Amino acid sequence: MAKEVTNKQENYSQWYNDLVVKADLAENSAVRGCMVIKPYGYAIWEKMHDQLDRMFKETGHVNAYFPLFIPKSFFSKEASHVEGFAKECAVVTHYRLKNSSDGKGIVVDDDARLEEELIVRPTSETIIWNTYKGWIQSYRDLPILVNQWANVVRWEMRTRLFLRTAEFLWQEGHTAHATEAEAIAETEQMINVYAEFAEKYMAMPVIKGRKTANERFAGALDTYSIEAMMQDGKALQSGTSHFLGQNFAKAFDVKFATREGNLDYVWATSWGVSTRLMGALIMAHSDDNGLVLPPRLAPTHVVIVPIYRNPEQLPLLAEKILPLKKELEARGLAVKFDDRDTVKPGFKFAEHELKGIPVRIAMGPRDMENGTVEIARRDTLEKKTCPMNEAVEKVVALMEEIQDHIYNKALEFRKANTHTTDSYREFQEILDKGGFIMAHWDGTSETEERIKEETKATIRCIPFDTPEEEGKCILTGNPSKRRVLFARAY
Amino acid sequence: MAKEVTNKQENYSQWYNDLVVKADLAENSAVRGCMVIKPYGYAIWEKMHDQLDRMFKETGHVNAYFPLFIPKSFFSKEASHVEGFAKECAVVTHYRLKNSSDGKGIVVDDDARLEEELIVRPTSETIIWNTYKGWIQSYRDLPILVNQWANVVRWEMRTRLFLRTAEFLWQEGHTAHATEAEAIAETEQMINVYAEFAEKYMAMPVIKGRKTANERFAGALDTYSIEAMMQDGKALQSGTSHFLGQNFAKAFDVKFATREGNLDYVWATSWGVSTRLMGALIMAHSDDNGLVLPPRLAPTHVVIVPIYRNPEQLPLLAEKILPLKKELEARGLAVKFDDRDTVKPGFKFAEHELKGIPVRIAMGPRDMENGTVEIARRDTLEKKTCPMNEAVEKVVALMEEIQDHIYNKALEFRKANTHTTDSYREFQEILDKGGFIMAHWDGTSETEERIKEETKATIRCIPFDTPEEEGKCILTGNPSKRRVLFARAY
Repeated sequence: MAKEVTNKQENYSQWYNDLVVKADLAENSAVRGCMVIKPYGYAIWEKMHDQLDRMFKETGHVNAYFPLFIPKSFFSKEASHVEGFAKECAVVTHYRLKNSSDGKGIVVDDDARLEEELIVRPTSETIIWNTYKGWIQSYRDLPILVNQWANVVRWEMRTRLFLRTAEFLWQEGHTAHATEAEAIAETEQMINVYAEFAEKYMAMPVIKGRKTANERFAGALDTYSIEAMMQDGKALQSGTSHFLGQNFAKAFDVKFATREGNLDYVWATSWGVSTRLMGALIMAHSDDNGLVLPPRLAPTHVVIVPIYRNPEQLPLLAEKILPLKKELEARGLAVKFDDRDTVKPGFKFAEHELKGIPVRIAMGPRDMENGTVEIARRDTLEKKTCPMNEAVEKVVALMEEIQDHIYNKALEFRKANTHTTDSYREFQEILDKGGFIMAHWDGTSETEERIKEETKATIRCIPFDTPEEEGKCILTGNPSKRRVLFARAY
Repeated sequence: MAKEVTNKQENYSQWYNDLVVKADLAENSAVRGCMVIKPYGYAIWEKMHDQLDRMFKETGHVNAYFPLFIPKSFFSKEASHVEGFAKECAVVTHYRLKNSSDGKGIVVDDDARLEEELIVRPTSETIIWNTYKGWIQSYRDLPILVNQWANVVRWEMRTRLFLRTAEFLWQEGHTAHATEAEAIAETEQMINVYAEFAEKYMAMPVIKGRKTANERFAGALDTYSIEAMMQDGKALQSGTSHFLGQNFAKAFDVKFATREGNLDYVWATSWGVSTRLMGALIMAHSDDNGLVLPPRLAPTHVVIVPIYRNPEQLPLLAEKILPLKKELEARGLAVKFDDRDTVKPGFKFAEHELKGIPVRIAMGPRDMENGTVEIARRDTLEKKTCPMNEAVEKVVALMEEIQDHIYNKALEFRKANTHTTDSYREFQEILDKGGFIMAHWDGTSETEERIKEETKATIRCIPFDTPEEEGKCILTGNPSKRRVLFARAY
């Protein structure tokens, strides 16, 4: 194979990076920490975008667009928000360049210094709530259910393609409500939307739960998250939904006349997922041959490869293949006929596997004689000969089968690598092998931090669906009422 | 009417601004020169985005994403490009803030100064060609047909919503080719795509042509544009497509092995349209009652308003209206049933007219008795009573009729306000009234600049479809071989 991928067991981190780069998903740019999302990677992101956008609209949301820049002073208005976000960020201080005096280049023009510095948005709560102040006077103006698709910048020191980059693409929902209950219901609805997207489209099982106070979004009263297990047993936080209470309404003085004629501060939520999901998708399913994409997010569902010895055979094969391609397309599938004559079939097979195309159909002279094709699944690498006239139904059915199989495989993997323990020593052993741990915790930030220092594990969430259970904290032995989810995380 | 719009004849500029703000399309933000695109404005932009994106993909392009930031030194590499773009721009100089020593706010951390300043992209040729260097080795890697949807920033001193803002949304295509002829064909193809979009979807007739050297994109060998006439007779450049020659390939040293085994620099094009199209759409068709939207870009095609005296009548009307709504939706139309009981029908009518919804259906008790509805067109403001059982077909047909009528009206207007003259005095008189002028020009930049100084008119383009014609320059009397298009412009 031309582009060899590092073995996953040997070096998981290098395996991931190889996949991203060699499958043409993304690469590092000339700008520190910023990535270039290449066409194939962007095509997958577009599929995610389109499906999420549909789900947001089905739940009553509309899109809008707010400025890239935020005045520095806005960040000081919400005390905990500034601690969380305003520190590591890109700061615009000038608005003009000029020719340097030696004539050899351009320099910043000191006469063009901004009166107030502008921050490239790391998240948009402040600029949006400053805007909502003008939109909301009465309960009749509520709810506001707005989402934004945008780029944001957080000056990360250690970056990894998709997982942690200085600039990334995301969506951020920002809603405004008349009551606390309605805002909480929205926060719950959106974490459910994210979970449904992760499971049904990304084929990635997730655990929904509440973050501890330590891990909450800066400025939120409550943060819900979905957590997925990667193939090294580590957790990847894949989406968050925040109940912001009246914090931002108070910071930006956004009050409304209630139905009863009083004045009250508006209730808020915000929620987001980002191109980080690309990292999750890659790490959840792929293998040493390359990407494994769930059909619902694959830009190409089927690739058809003609096998021939001499060039005269190609048109004869094409005569059979093109109608098949058309029929598959009529069933809603994206199909590619790979008739390149510059590379051999083996090279093509490896390339299509690297790129995670769910189904490959091969057809050679023998197949033509027998009226068959060879159908190969990317997920299991199984190959089967199939009568030509059954191929369309077979491939259509395979899309659902593959989607389900990838999901179930990931779910089985998570089950096999999720442990319940009451021993701190075992806790540490499990972490070193990789996996999720359900363990008791005494509910204090101090304990949470000590466990993090000693084991590098964090409380990923307090899952919504774990039952109450009396127990003793894994570290301190103090009483606990329910197990929480511990793991090392990306 | 609740939200009165300034009369167009009285104050065209205020009329435009009123429409943008009162129809809830956009508003100025707290950040100088940056706008907030409100949900209704964004919904129209999404329709533009989706249609353009389809057209780009049909012509073989794929999307990708490149960094927001560009190292300052990149701009110095293409000499004319830096003059055109790098001067008025947002400059990132620091990457961290810290608490101020008085504890009262946050300040820029001087220890976190960037080694090299980063420019927020005003356009992406430099960062993209620096990236293409890694993608292109041989003719087999060509062509590259990439488009990017992104935000860009140009530090404009005088801004106007949609027409000229510091930050705006756009798409920028950047293609790479093995031959000059192929790059020129691409440049032509894309100006044709833009013209088709403007005419078929925006219902806005445009003139295609070549820019003069003075008006070329900074770094291009040739710039094509589409120019549209606004209702004040001024021109609005609505899209540009640039043949960049080998300029950027030379600046970033992007060479490829040709089929013949030589090394050559790669040929380039770039092309873009922006949220400026929103301004063009508004100004091309709207009237004193508000927006007039072409059906193909209207987020809502039909609004249905029930007319009733007492609340008991509403459910009876709804019983008739909801099946009608469903039938219209089954025909692919976006339909809104405006059953708000907090405002009167007259208020609703005015609001729907302000927002440019192409068709309004009203139904009252009398209509129920007679089995009719009232159908009103937004473009002509005509109202007609129509049998209920013919309503669906009527409305579906109206969509095409309105789309065509808006286009034809704009075309008639442009014809009526386009003049041919050989007298410089008449030239100036026409400009003062507003309109396009086809006049002779001697082909020199000096003449072009003098005309601009004296009349504020620029050469919008040298139209592709004007015949050769011997004549004398309108200013200097020097010989000229063809008329060019002059106008004052946005």
